[in-house]
Amino acid sequence: MSTEKCFAKGSAAPGPVPQGNIRFYSMRFCPFAQRTKLVLNAKGIKHDTVNINLKDKPDWFLEKNPLGLVPTLETPAGEVIYESPITCDYLDEVYPEKKLLPSSPFGKAQQRMMLEHFSKVIPYFRKIPAGRNNGEDVSGLEAELKEKFAKFNKDLVKRKTKFFGGESITMIDYMMWPFFERLEIFELQHCLNDAPELKKWIECMSEDPTVKATRHSVDTYKGFYKSYIEGNPNYDYGL
Amino acid sequence: MSTEKCFAKGSAAPGPVPQGNIRFYSMRFCPFAQRTKLVLNAKGIKHDTVNINLKDKPDWFLEKNPLGLVPTLETPAGEVIYESPITCDYLDEVYPEKKLLPSSPFGKAQQRMMLEHFSKVIPYFRKIPAGRNNGEDVSGLEAELKEKFAKFNKDLVKRKTKFFGGESITMIDYMMWPFFERLEIFELQHCLNDAPELKKWIECMSEDPTVKATRHSVDTYKGFYKSYIEGNPNYDYGL
Repeated sequence: MSTEKCFAKGSAAPGPVPQGNIRFYSMRFCPFAQRTKLVLNAKGIKHDTVNINLKDKPDWFLEKNPLGLVPTLETPAGEVIYESPITCDYLDEVYPEKKLLPSSPFGKAQQRMMLEHFSKVIPYFRKIPAGRNNGEDVSGLEAELKEKFAKFNKDLVKRKTKFFGGESITMIDYMMWPFFERLEIFELQHCLNDAPELKKWIECMSEDPTVKATRHSVDTYKGFYKSYIEGNPNYDYGL
Repeated sequence: MSTEKCFAKGSAAPGPVPQGNIRFYSMRFCPFAQRTKLVLNAKGIKHDTVNINLKDKPDWFLEKNPLGLVPTLETPAGEVIYESPITCDYLDEVYPEKKLLPSSPFGKAQQRMMLEHFSKVIPYFRKIPAGRNNGEDVSGLEAELKEKFAKFNKDLVKRKTKFFGGESITMIDYMMWPFFERLEIFELQHCLNDAPELKKWIECMSEDPTVKATRHSVDTYKGFYKSYIEGNPNYDYGL
């Protein structure tokens, strides 16, 4: 599936989406696309993957999604869905196997509120590595991230559950996971020092078959991010 | 309901939420809280309103919602829900009267994607008035907003429907409306010059009983925004 090399500008468009399938436009190293990939995999949804060269996007892709972003889904009926939480909620609603969202309206609202809190963590995964790269002092940013992680830790302590939605993995865990998978590559692990429960959550997540099946090795990530920082991202790194 | 004066720091907390009721924490001039107010009103949901002094928030409010933002909902069971789209989707799911969201997963996804596009319009409602206030040239920002409105216009032309979700009002219309209600106050009406279908939509929305029941007069808005710009917002203006 995701062994497919990426499509760039000038490439021929892939054929129509076969009946009974859903198409997943992705980029192999995009944490947002990985959310959708986790959901597709966890729910066992039949799909094909079309990887996009995000630096040099095909015109046919921009016609489907004017924002040109991954993840994007396309159904055999030509329906196009984008923005990672929207794609994931859509998949959970359409495919009844292994529901990842709670059935109660308040449970759903809680997951979306947690995601909203988590969205304030994400910029640090860009700002800290970029700052270091420019030789800036990032200790202030690191302290902020540490504090944010401590809040998520507190949340787990309060809930007394293994995962953020209960004793088993739910949607919110998969929404957060791709960023934690990149902690080592971005050298942010020390920001977890005050967050022992969050560390345990990471360990539990690492054992999940879906997480295992969709992750890259640290070396592969490092190879990609090296090319990315050099301004010439190799989207096919490791293929 | 919203004739209630706002609660500031040091005020006594309101009593528990009565059974069969839902509590709506609001600020009378907040466009995000207005989204929730429109949904509460359109669906005829029994609620009480507690207005919050956003410059001087009561501690008991910050205990309920650490972000201290409106809109916030509270149920008799003590469940707290915040972030305007989350509160609105929650209400639509819990209260079956007059469903505002489509029942199909793709219909729902479409509404959320439109909201995502619209979220890129919202900052202009802050940036243009603030820029003018500082004596800056805002013509570039105005041109950008004009272009964004033209895209929404194109969307309506393509859909061939009165409203963004069909021939009657759905959730997305109420999510967008509060900002259009403020066009005149922020002197942004000329940005609609290339958007005749969007102008028609505004006319149709203005006729909606819920919109009529929840809007302030232009004079009241102007009075509030004057106090706001002067750095001393009068949240009770007009009461």
